[in-house]
Amino acid sequence: MKANFRCWLDNDEGEQIVGPGLYQLLIEVKKTGSLSQAAREMNMSYRTAWGKIKKIEKRVGAEVIEKTVGGKDGGGSELTSKGYELMNIYRKLKTKLETALNDLDKV
Amino acid sequence: MKANFRCWLDNDEGEQIVGPGLYQLLIEVKKTGSLSQAAREMNMSYRTAWGKIKKIEKRVGAEVIEKTVGGKDGGGSELTSKGYELMNIYRKLKTKLETALNDLDKV
Repeated sequence: MKANFRCWLDNDEGEQIVGPGLYQLLIEVKKTGSLSQAAREMNMSYRTAWGKIKKIEKRVGAEVIEKTVGGKDGGGSELTSKGYELMNIYRKLKTKLETALNDLDKV
Repeated sequence: MKANFRCWLDNDEGEQIVGPGLYQLLIEVKKTGSLSQAAREMNMSYRTAWGKIKKIEKRVGAEVIEKTVGGKDGGGSELTSKGYELMNIYRKLKTKLETALNDLDKV
């Protein structure tokens, strides 16, 4: 048998803020410096990715990504400090649960 | 923010065996000594509960509950040793992850 889990963070109103999907999207934005490229990496339309980000920004009351201007590609997107905070808290949660799971006797 | 998780056990073919629903159903069968009463406690039809049990029995290749005969209520259902085993392994997993979550600094 194999044990599995899924984890997520809710705000104080019980609305989901970060789950596996948004976490991966934040990682891809950080990696690629572009929301449209991040969306492509996840086989998601730009519109869907943008909608996910907007929904979360509303739920946390702060911007999660921001536009960058200039550079050879004419600008892109990067995480705000709130975006980094959400990504890091989720990673911490996920790592903690993974460690607990690995500590379980083989079931 | 509040951290949450859902956990489950798969068999070696990657099919789910025990998740929150089946775990609760096993607990109720143990508590009530009856699959129909267990189903009622979970606002589930007997047919649905029976189907869940049959599906899992197929996936683990063993019976999970068995009929009891006699007694003032004319028989009921109880967990087999495999049923107890699944319930206990799931509880162990769930408790382990809950403990890890409580150990997390308040996020």
